[in-house]
Amino acid sequence: MTAVPRFRRVAVLGTGLIGGSVAVALRGRGLADEVVGHDPREGAEALRLGLVDRIEPRVRDTLHGADLVVLAAPVAANCALLHEIGRLPPGALAPEVSITDVSSTKRSIVDAATGSLGRLLPRFVASHPISGSERHGAAAATPGLFDGCVAVVCPGADSAPDAVERTGALWRGLGARVVTMTPHRHDDLFAAVSHWPHAVAFALSAAVGSGDFADDARRYSGAGLRDTTRIGASSPELWADILLDNRAPSLAAAKAFRAELDAIEQALLDRDRSALVAVLARGANWRSTL
Amino acid sequence: MTAVPRFRRVAVLGTGLIGGSVAVALRGRGLADEVVGHDPREGAEALRLGLVDRIEPRVRDTLHGADLVVLAAPVAANCALLHEIGRLPPGALAPEVSITDVSSTKRSIVDAATGSLGRLLPRFVASHPISGSERHGAAAATPGLFDGCVAVVCPGADSAPDAVERTGALWRGLGARVVTMTPHRHDDLFAAVSHWPHAVAFALSAAVGSGDFADDARRYSGAGLRDTTRIGASSPELWADILLDNRAPSLAAAKAFRAELDAIEQALLDRDRSALVAVLARGANWRSTL
Repeated sequence: MTAVPRFRRVAVLGTGLIGGSVAVALRGRGLADEVVGHDPREGAEALRLGLVDRIEPRVRDTLHGADLVVLAAPVAANCALLHEIGRLPPGALAPEVSITDVSSTKRSIVDAATGSLGRLLPRFVASHPISGSERHGAAAATPGLFDGCVAVVCPGADSAPDAVERTGALWRGLGARVVTMTPHRHDDLFAAVSHWPHAVAFALSAAVGSGDFADDARRYSGAGLRDTTRIGASSPELWADILLDNRAPSLAAAKAFRAELDAIEQALLDRDRSALVAVLARGANWRSTL
Repeated sequence: MTAVPRFRRVAVLGTGLIGGSVAVALRGRGLADEVVGHDPREGAEALRLGLVDRIEPRVRDTLHGADLVVLAAPVAANCALLHEIGRLPPGALAPEVSITDVSSTKRSIVDAATGSLGRLLPRFVASHPISGSERHGAAAATPGLFDGCVAVVCPGADSAPDAVERTGALWRGLGARVVTMTPHRHDDLFAAVSHWPHAVAFALSAAVGSGDFADDARRYSGAGLRDTTRIGASSPELWADILLDNRAPSLAAAKAFRAELDAIEQALLDRDRSALVAVLARGANWRSTL
């Protein structure tokens, strides 16, 4: 185990659920002398809730003197922030700064870093803490969000070893277990285990909620439907962007899911009990080991 | 509110998760002088766990002297039990007996009662406590299973008022809220809110669990996948039988789900963000009110 780092000043760009939780967890654990936030929409709320020490209206002022920068806006906004950071004059960032992000997809942010950061590229190390909630916004931020979760870190070929080390140490400091993988592996894996499952939960919620049974479903559904659809209450905008950003892997996951669903439906049409049991058992066998 | 009934002798046929929980809840709340179980597979375990007072190997001996009979075997076995009960000689059952079931589908059991019970038909009142677990078997039985849940009661045109009343009182006595509906409405509604959602959870588990990501999914999945697939760990045999028994309504629910899923996939193929947000929002709007 590496010693838990102590940061001088952490800049958190985007103080919604994830960024706000990073901020308040750093403060709560005494891991940063100062946490500075920037978020045109959620910033005031984050300050009021005590997630951050202060809020800066300008990106450049937020970054000033920071030894850790956490990009916690939606992925497209994070890419735009990398572009903005890459165009800052030398000296705008501390030379020892580490820059990371918390986006749910990793190929596009790594591509944006490669295209935008120039001399700062070695300071960038992408990450994705596997933790979240169907809730969103600063009001949902909580210091325990990363406790016991997995944090995926995706170093680039150009990442400086000390930046990789400090990014891992950040997540370990917040209670997460750190795993390293390539951006491609990350995006393929999370399309299958997270992005497409979200699409399924949204679709199931929409099917139940826009049919003849919407009201009765609310009254009579059990824990099964509540659990199966829970992440279907997530932010539509956020998840539309994730699915679009991770489009090809998500469509591949969709195809795999559809094959299993087709098999169930066909067995039901054919009244073929053994075929139906076989596909349900394929799911149950795996799920029982989760 | 009606007074909570006290039963002299309750016969529970099928002492798995639901039947075992009915038995142990009746005993725990002191609502029955005696609970007699019958289950060729789970009976010995139910007795060992103290879910029932005694186990009878023969159906007829189980029913003897009972003022309440609860059919808690899988639905096809319950239908066969109704046939067996209908062929018993007069006097084999107490004249004031109430017979109910706990099957997840209601049309087929009501049809079986109508076809099999003869002079006993007025004593039968179908019910379905909306409570369960991905676990199964006597070992999973728990006295709190019905606390706060909804119990659907489906009286037939021939059901005697006192039998209807006592069936409702049973579920209220175990902590449930009683709702009355027709078997047709029940089966259509629960295809949409329970049976097809189970198929979706099985399919998603199978897709994740039989692909390239089965092992990594086990390691890196978050609460989202765990919740979305939880009921995909249910019994494949049990759910194959429920889906087959409730085939047409399940296929109708499948069609509604597929329409939403197709809309998501098409929007993703078309890179149409506003169409994608629209369908995800349709799901999120309903789910947020659940």
